Amino acid sequence: MSKAIAGPEIERLIQLLARVPGLGPRSARRAALHLIKKKEQLFAPLSSAMAEALERVRICSTCGNVDTSDPCTICTDPRRDGATIIVVEDVSDLWALERAGAMNARYHVLGGTLSPLDGVGPDDLNIKGLVSRVAEGGVSEIILAVNATVEGQTTAHYITDQMAGMDVKVTRLAHGVPVGGELDYLDEGTLAAALKSRTAF
Amino acid sequence: MSKAIAGPEIERLIQLLARVPGLGPRSARRAALHLIKKKEQLFAPLSSAMAEALERVRICSTCGNVDTSDPCTICTDPRRDGATIIVVEDVSDLWALERAGAMNARYHVLGGTLSPLDGVGPDDLNIKGLVSRVAEGGVSEIILAVNATVEGQTTAHYITDQMAGMDVKVTRLAHGVPVGGELDYLDEGTLAAALKSRTAF
Ligand SMILES: [Zn+2]
Ligand SMILES: [Zn+2]
Repeated sequence: MSKAIAGPEIERLIQLLARVPGLGPRSARRAALHLIKKKEQLFAPLSSAMAEALERVRICSTCGNVDTSDPCTICTDPRRDGATIIVVEDVSDLWALERAGAMNARYHVLGGTLSPLDGVGPDDLNIKGLVSRVAEGGVSEIILAVNATVEGQTTAHYITDQMAGMDVKVTRLAHGVPVGGELDYLDEGTLAAALKSRTAF
Repeated sequence: MSKAIAGPEIERLIQLLARVPGLGPRSARRAALHLIKKKEQLFAPLSSAMAEALERVRICSTCGNVDTSDPCTICTDPRRDGATIIVVEDVSDLWALERAGAMNARYHVLGGTLSPLDGVGPDDLNIKGLVSRVAEGGVSEIILAVNATVEGQTTAHYITDQMAGMDVKVTRLAHGVPVGGELDYLDEGTLAAALKSRTAF
């Protein structure tokens, strides 16, 4: 707002809400007003949920997943197949694959893709951690579940090269992923099918 | 999410974010991940802004505006023209009119419109408070800045009837407001023009 008309604390809330993806300046004002109107039902619970999540959130030092424990729930789940690691660019892809529910494997979050033009090299991604996990043994397959973009495929090739000489099978998702598409936008059936018909890389 | 994979605090944050207008379940997940990634730059400031706004927000007992003080900043501002009261349905309309910046008056927030079909009668709105403010004296004009909907116009007629016999001029916004349109979606120029060419009701 151009003028401060609702008190500095509310103005600041609106300004910060406007920076949340999915909300803009107008949506932020509407969201703030809605929160104020639903003070007990939504505003108070959301405020405390935010404070708790902020305090407890951790990045898993093993796989890069977001959780409230480190190592994360998936890394410590004994029912998960530790011999298979699904490599993803981002936590949002991990979440999408979990919603598809097709695999009971573990994950490795790279934190992006190789992109020389943007100055993103191998050391900027969590690739060394992946090599270490495979080097420790017990991993028989790595599924490269990266986006079907140029950067994603470049990253997949680089990781495959790093695995040369190690006793691990490297596979990638089947061509159910649309070219140029992003995992997080796919429906769960397509993701599940792409996982099932993964091919040797 | 169908499965809890990111810890109960993060799941709860996502569920509550999904109830914020402008965000849905998918946007809520993206928003939560973005907050976690921008922990220091956005998540922490937003969390504390939320807690502070939650603690300090008040509904003005004079006009129904949302602020961190009661009476609100507008009601206590000596530079405001207390002789003119702009009557609006919702605080979002007050904010829209303030952004238009065309008037330096005070406000009265009704909290909705008369809607017999939805069981909303005069006692469900902040109409008695408006009558009291006018009865106290010092108010020479009431501008009915309600939406150009059937309910808005019904409400305007009802308020005009309540003002019968009181020494106050009742006006309404000029027909710059599109029929069926809502104030909060209008551009500032249209709102300013509608205020300037308001007509006798
Ligand atoms: Zn982990
Ligand atoms: Zn007030």
